[in-house]
Amino acid sequence: MKKSLIALAVLAATGAASAQSSVTLYGIVDVWVGSQETGLNADSVTKVGSGGFSSSRVGFQGSEDLGGGLNAIFKLEGNFAADTGVGSSTGGGFNFNRQAYLGLSGGFGTVTIGKVWTAMDDVLFNNDYAFDSAFFAGNILQVNANYEGNPGNTIKYANSFGAFSGAVSYSLDEDNAVKEDIVDFSIGYGAGPITANFAYQLQNGATDEKLTAFNGSYDFGVVKLLGGLGQYKVGASKSTDYHLGLDVPLSSAMTLSGGYSASTDNAAAGDNERSGFGIALNYALSKRTNAYVGYTQDKTENAAGAKTDENSLMAVGIRHTF
Amino acid sequence: MKKSLIALAVLAATGAASAQSSVTLYGIVDVWVGSQETGLNADSVTKVGSGGFSSSRVGFQGSEDLGGGLNAIFKLEGNFAADTGVGSSTGGGFNFNRQAYLGLSGGFGTVTIGKVWTAMDDVLFNNDYAFDSAFFAGNILQVNANYEGNPGNTIKYANSFGAFSGAVSYSLDEDNAVKEDIVDFSIGYGAGPITANFAYQLQNGATDEKLTAFNGSYDFGVVKLLGGLGQYKVGASKSTDYHLGLDVPLSSAMTLSGGYSASTDNAAAGDNERSGFGIALNYALSKRTNAYVGYTQDKTENAAGAKTDENSLMAVGIRHTF
Amino acid sequence: MKKSLIALAVLAATGAASAQSSVTLYGIVDVWVGSQETGLNADSVTKVGSGGFSSSRVGFQGSEDLGGGLNAIFKLEGNFAADTGVGSSTGGGFNFNRQAYLGLSGGFGTVTIGKVWTAMDDVLFNNDYAFDSAFFAGNILQVNANYEGNPGNTIKYANSFGAFSGAVSYSLDEDNAVKEDIVDFSIGYGAGPITANFAYQLQNGATDEKLTAFNGSYDFGVVKLLGGLGQYKVGASKSTDYHLGLDVPLSSAMTLSGGYSASTDNAAAGDNERSGFGIALNYALSKRTNAYVGYTQDKTENAAGAKTDENSLMAVGIRHTF
Repeated sequence: MKKSLIALAVLAATGAASAQSSVTLYGIVDVWVGSQETGLNADSVTKVGSGGFSSSRVGFQGSEDLGGGLNAIFKLEGNFAADTGVGSSTGGGFNFNRQAYLGLSGGFGTVTIGKVWTAMDDVLFNNDYAFDSAFFAGNILQVNANYEGNPGNTIKYANSFGAFSGAVSYSLDEDNAVKEDIVDFSIGYGAGPITANFAYQLQNGATDEKLTAFNGSYDFGVVKLLGGLGQYKVGASKSTDYHLGLDVPLSSAMTLSGGYSASTDNAAAGDNERSGFGIALNYALSKRTNAYVGYTQDKTENAAGAKTDENSLMAVGIRHTF
Repeated sequence: MKKSLIALAVLAATGAASAQSSVTLYGIVDVWVGSQETGLNADSVTKVGSGGFSSSRVGFQGSEDLGGGLNAIFKLEGNFAADTGVGSSTGGGFNFNRQAYLGLSGGFGTVTIGKVWTAMDDVLFNNDYAFDSAFFAGNILQVNANYEGNPGNTIKYANSFGAFSGAVSYSLDEDNAVKEDIVDFSIGYGAGPITANFAYQLQNGATDEKLTAFNGSYDFGVVKLLGGLGQYKVGASKSTDYHLGLDVPLSSAMTLSGGYSASTDNAAAGDNERSGFGIALNYALSKRTNAYVGYTQDKTENAAGAKTDENSLMAVGIRHTF
Repeated sequence: MKKSLIALAVLAATGAASAQSSVTLYGIVDVWVGSQETGLNADSVTKVGSGGFSSSRVGFQGSEDLGGGLNAIFKLEGNFAADTGVGSSTGGGFNFNRQAYLGLSGGFGTVTIGKVWTAMDDVLFNNDYAFDSAFFAGNILQVNANYEGNPGNTIKYANSFGAFSGAVSYSLDEDNAVKEDIVDFSIGYGAGPITANFAYQLQNGATDEKLTAFNGSYDFGVVKLLGGLGQYKVGASKSTDYHLGLDVPLSSAMTLSGGYSASTDNAAAGDNERSGFGIALNYALSKRTNAYVGYTQDKTENAAGAKTDENSLMAVGIRHTF
């Protein structure tokens, strides 16, 4: 997610001698027009939608140089629906549902506290085909469907060493009745044509959930190969996910990307089989604005081979980052 | 609605070579103190209120030059009550209930998608007396009371040719059960002392609603004559609205404006008769701040001539735009 | 509460000739990690929390020079929880629950209208030990527990004369059924080593509530002595509060502060006795960022001497103002 910054000269209220700093107002507005089917045998609905390429959002972020290589950093960011103006709180108000944290960054790495993306979230979507957009058939993947990306009340540590980066996070449930803390770690590697990421999340609860994900890519220049594997365990049940795709640069401004996703259970209730695919074309109108068109569909079949769910989306849209 | 812009130099996060752009933080804070009667035989209540002259709001807007005369534009704007701080969502949170859109603007005109004011909304209030404030007796007009100004999920096209401007908008209901799409077009003319506007809105539903409005003004210099006609049809029922008023400039900073509004039904249930008037004095304290004082009252009588509703507002207030 | 300002050059949309002005985006992000006990015999809960030192908030404020020494001023400010991103509205959305007002400021003083802190709120917390943080044992004080700090629909006048400052505020309930208006005045004095404040608030209702508070401080240099007295009357019942503490500067960047609070009723239902203490260490990492650690506990005993409530908080945190 590239962002443009609004660098603002900050003048302390109490005098001209204070240090320079920066606060950034940033966001994404992403709208699409298309046709969507949600659920088995559902009629397709023509829609104006939000977030076809990236979810629409607004945020504030800033940093302050504390000296000695230490920086205070903060971020406040929330989603909104660009088609209706509605926010993400229960009552439809805007709030900082995505991120709200304060942290310290320095030679030791970065510690952030608050509503922070978990360590798994940092890397889980890094090698999704179709630009990790709404055209990536991801909802059928059980890791994606069941993981908690930003539970809040989180303490996180992240750092990088050369080609490697890593993070651990711990999210408190703040309830003594049942321990429902969430523990994460992730590690990433990127050098030359290769990227590779591994993440693990443990969601404590009455029945613990364990989520493991690996993804990677290899850039051949003409095409970039992308893929991922995932495993979701809850009690004795286990689901296995994979996805595989290609990015194909057609010109300096245009890239085509598509792929296939699948997930299998060995649940006591029977082995569900889920599969889907997606394809999207991205055209950069500028550094901060792109147009896109895409299609995705997925289906779920139960152990008897009967279809129990299906979804599809065809849309053309435009996204602006500021 | 004049707005002050905060022009911000935008430096792309990824380097100094990127194009200049602008993001604007803007808004209106409007508070009043006054006395309000709401409903038949209701006691008057002394109040601190919000939006006597214009509804209080905050927004972000921006644009990016895409080259070739093409611009990406976006706007995110929501209301709040300046007397209580409460926003417009169900739970009282702030959201972008007024506008949330992304669009493209160029020689071909402007296309916007999202939560956009309908084409009718663009011109419906252009020639209201009393500065289209809370002192314009508008609630009794059945077009105003029944039209949907920004239903969301809207695609809109607007353009202008010399003295003429026009827009069409289409708002999707996104529900296959009953078609409730909203279709609009409007056209405006402004040259010399004359302005004239026409708008039509079709609100599809179990029973279709059709709204038509015409308004115009003639500036004699000493006074400006303002007026409008409206028709609201739902099934076999029809209501006819009109309003007529005068703007009287008293000095370079002070303008008096007032007028009369009326509406008649031919509903099966009987012919309601509605009428009201309003008067307001506007004093510009600066380019961005004005003080105002005004009075308005209206009443509704049923077919038997019995009063069924009455409302009044007397207030003094101040409005600041930023 | 010191704030850093983002001074923005404002260019009016309608031309370059308009006056310079300023809009400020400001806020506080405050997170802590600690252990909290809430209620009698409650287990302690390990938490990531928000607002250990100051409540987390975001706001916009601005002013315009109207000429002749007159300024239009506005402020829009709301709380959020930095640990979860949630706002303060019923549905969890962000809104301007703290302040939303427009005002005029000049030689005559300052008049503000809207969601304004009452005159009592201006001074009530000025001499709380433990930096008026969450480590000040304040909830047991009946003035603090029962006063309304910003009821909204408020008209306020404030001014200062040399070492003296004062304010009166009136908050309308806007309901004719029961008069529940709130009336306030406060006066403050600060010169040399001495500060002193007095405030009175009358909360009209079915039974009127009367709140009186006095607080002061004397700075001996080596230590600063802080204290306050309060009285809360509702009908025939009366509670008396006091708190006493010390600020001890340990270095240019580090201050220790602590103290004791107590409150006694003479309620018909029996004399509750409440007491608590708190201590906090504040370390300034920079002008705008500070780290803190603190502990507080309080308890309530009924007329029979049985404990009916107890609370404690131990936390380490960091606060950033922007």
